[in-house]
Amino acid sequence: MVQPSANGGQLRRPWTEAGMAGTNAGTRLRAAPSGESDELGRRLAASAEYRPRPAGDVVEWLAGRRRSVPVEVTRIPFDRMAGWSFDPGSGDLVHESGRFFTVGGIHARTDYGVVPDWRQPIIYQQDVAIVGILAKEIDGVLHFLMQAKIEPGNVNTVQLSPTVQSTSSNYLRTHRGARSRFVEYFTEPGRARVLVDVLQSEQGAWFWAKRNRNVVMEVTGEVEPHDDFAWMTLGQILDLLHHPNVVNMDSRTVLACLLASASSIVRPGDGAAAAFAAPPYASGEDAFLSPVQVRSWLTERKSAYTLATRAIPLDSVDGWERGADAIRRPDGRYFSVVGVEVHAGNREVSDWCQPLLEPRGIGLAALVVRRINGILHVLARADLRPGCRDTVELGPTVQCTPENYEGAPRETRPRYLDLVLSRSVKVRYDVVQSEEGGRFRHAQTRHLVVEVGGGFPARTPADFCWLTVPQAMALARQSYQVNIEARSLLLCLHAL
Amino acid sequence: MVQPSANGGQLRRPWTEAGMAGTNAGTRLRAAPSGESDELGRRLAASAEYRPRPAGDVVEWLAGRRRSVPVEVTRIPFDRMAGWSFDPGSGDLVHESGRFFTVGGIHARTDYGVVPDWRQPIIYQQDVAIVGILAKEIDGVLHFLMQAKIEPGNVNTVQLSPTVQSTSSNYLRTHRGARSRFVEYFTEPGRARVLVDVLQSEQGAWFWAKRNRNVVMEVTGEVEPHDDFAWMTLGQILDLLHHPNVVNMDSRTVLACLLASASSIVRPGDGAAAAFAAPPYASGEDAFLSPVQVRSWLTERKSAYTLATRAIPLDSVDGWERGADAIRRPDGRYFSVVGVEVHAGNREVSDWCQPLLEPRGIGLAALVVRRINGILHVLARADLRPGCRDTVELGPTVQCTPENYEGAPRETRPRYLDLVLSRSVKVRYDVVQSEEGGRFRHAQTRHLVVEVGGGFPARTPADFCWLTVPQAMALARQSYQVNIEARSLLLCLHAL
Repeated sequence: MVQPSANGGQLRRPWTEAGMAGTNAGTRLRAAPSGESDELGRRLAASAEYRPRPAGDVVEWLAGRRRSVPVEVTRIPFDRMAGWSFDPGSGDLVHESGRFFTVGGIHARTDYGVVPDWRQPIIYQQDVAIVGILAKEIDGVLHFLMQAKIEPGNVNTVQLSPTVQSTSSNYLRTHRGARSRFVEYFTEPGRARVLVDVLQSEQGAWFWAKRNRNVVMEVTGEVEPHDDFAWMTLGQILDLLHHPNVVNMDSRTVLACLLASASSIVRPGDGAAAAFAAPPYASGEDAFLSPVQVRSWLTERKSAYTLATRAIPLDSVDGWERGADAIRRPDGRYFSVVGVEVHAGNREVSDWCQPLLEPRGIGLAALVVRRINGILHVLARADLRPGCRDTVELGPTVQCTPENYEGAPRETRPRYLDLVLSRSVKVRYDVVQSEEGGRFRHAQTRHLVVEVGGGFPARTPADFCWLTVPQAMALARQSYQVNIEARSLLLCLHAL
Repeated sequence: MVQPSANGGQLRRPWTEAGMAGTNAGTRLRAAPSGESDELGRRLAASAEYRPRPAGDVVEWLAGRRRSVPVEVTRIPFDRMAGWSFDPGSGDLVHESGRFFTVGGIHARTDYGVVPDWRQPIIYQQDVAIVGILAKEIDGVLHFLMQAKIEPGNVNTVQLSPTVQSTSSNYLRTHRGARSRFVEYFTEPGRARVLVDVLQSEQGAWFWAKRNRNVVMEVTGEVEPHDDFAWMTLGQILDLLHHPNVVNMDSRTVLACLLASASSIVRPGDGAAAAFAAPPYASGEDAFLSPVQVRSWLTERKSAYTLATRAIPLDSVDGWERGADAIRRPDGRYFSVVGVEVHAGNREVSDWCQPLLEPRGIGLAALVVRRINGILHVLARADLRPGCRDTVELGPTVQCTPENYEGAPRETRPRYLDLVLSRSVKVRYDVVQSEEGGRFRHAQTRHLVVEVGGGFPARTPADFCWLTVPQAMALARQSYQVNIEARSLLLCLHAL
């Protein structure tokens, strides 16, 4: 376990002194003027300003964990995938226990976008996973217990995960290996104090109606140390967002929800990103739309489209072919479903096999930002995905896999795709981050924040809307309003 | 059109004077101390205090509308239901246009409650209805444009409806009759100012994943008068909640969402219900649980249960029988599906036929309330219904049809059902209200608010939770957190 107090932070620094005591260069989150009192927001701002160790130390620690637990992930044909088989009736890819998840088919019809009717494989998983982070005050500053976690789909095997990342198949019942470490803080009442606890959607193109419980629990007592876990501040984690594929998707969405729960005072400041962020920060009057107008826009967009989905047997997904070692389209587009075998040297997990969904190419999640009335606004898009419980959520300006549009007619290319990749924008953030490695293989998404100038029209097509960052964060406080890529980008915005 | 300024209200009464100028007996909503400024809340409080006419006038007006447009609703066998037929493949009851709605089947499996696996008929309706109320300041006080609307399922034909109550089949396309009157205020941007606009679930036992857009739009200009519409204040509408089957379900849910959007300052006061409401009103510190704990409880309950639903052909719903004029269970439980023919003398609507879902007996929606730390708390229940998009929502303490439990084993009776019907509680509200008459026939629900004393345990079973009214209203600001019966009861609480 990395001891955050071993280097720096010897002095007790209560959060009330936070604004003055930053040890690092950029003050990137700051507390609001007193009066807008929000204890959690002040504590998060203090944690964001405090970096007892440089980000490189965590990267090295992850590399060390990677070396100490050698893991081998091998692609195997489906008939060698122990425990998994194709259901003779439906062709669905199922586990013999009936648990974990199933790869089945879906038939979707919608009046959104350019494809009105399609069938595709999709992951069905009924239970709600806990993606939970333990928080604790150390030296008077909030720290978060992050895990160096092996996931078979990760390009680099080990990434920084929440303290607990566990489906109820894992935490309620026994199966391979032991119960998730520290899960009792999230399942047993009274062991910790809840800071945020909200259901959020996952990737709606790949999961059907999947949702996770994004939760942060604060403890005050001793937490048993373990080599795979380390306490770090929000500042350290935000720094790590400048490294590719380090902070995993589950960590990013939980932390986005945590910041959203206090967004009235956790805000990008005028430190390292002075040229980019716009002080004074958005107040309601300066925003392009009022909060109720923003909400109404999203409600109207949710109502504007119909989406009819129907579970269908995997065998009846037209246009996809099942080979010996992959389910894929002949044209190679979108994704394939493959099988892997995992040999891990970790004493808690024995070897296992599982399917993974492997997207084609590197995805793109891009957020266009500009100043309106001197205030930073993000250009969000009403995004419909077949697996979204509430059909439409607020997404990034552009969310797609550019390779899928190679050779496609110009009018089918996503709006603003060419803009965000052009030289006419100022790139403010450009880092490749991973999707969840427990279900997706080598799924990487380029996270891009680009700024446009005042010449860019404030009026937009109906599916797009300018919001301030606090307005977007306020929507993320609620379930099923902000999609997972947008939540991830909103967190990255706080690292600028 | 009833002119609210014809009687009373001659003086211009800006909302800032509202607290002083109540013309009626009970001051039941009041503005918060200044500092907690919330313009909408103050305006709603003023509207709640102002009653230019007694409630009886509106009841008489509705009776007059009922007489002036004679409507005849006749139960007919399915084979006489013009435009509707049973699909030969599935047995689903469908309209020839493919629009409106379909009665199909659902197969539900869950670990919630005492029935783990069942099939039932259910209504499928893809499009999102607008249930929208126009608001306008008249004599300085917010008034709402309510409609005397004929619905074939209403026990009394005409009830007080929102200004617009229309599915997109109606407002986007032409079909029988004209476009809904006033719908342009809700569909054309810039015609009005949005006060609230949120998607909410409908009856999850009868509708599959149905959601409505609950919206209130404020206008400033002239609104064309029409005999079926009248402007009234919130105070008048709240008074009408003491009359059975007057304010329809759609009106109740929209107004609940409107009050929720300003709940920080719209609160039961200490007027007529001084013995019941608890001044000083709930502040965060006096609540039994903090807001984040309440939210966490509901998130945890949403995660605690699995619900797997699958659309099935109506023909394959075991245990239900299709006769010539009803689809029902041999034991008569739950509900039946019937057909009706409607003859209306209204020039805008020609005769039509449609199916209706007719529940057995009168439903019960009961809320147990008690004072904790001197503050009014309501005992909410985590309620799972097969048609709920988010599986579990916060429901009343008891929500059931008592007749369905006649002769059933004691252990299957809903928790607290016997309590709320017993003499050991103080009845604070007991009025029968209707479910939506456009889909449900003679569906009435007894709305009951009962108070228990300090001897009632504050600790409750896991599916129950004590919340303050503002905490419950805060959840109702979000989609899919508070079910339709609970929203209806929360509105009724404001009438006390």
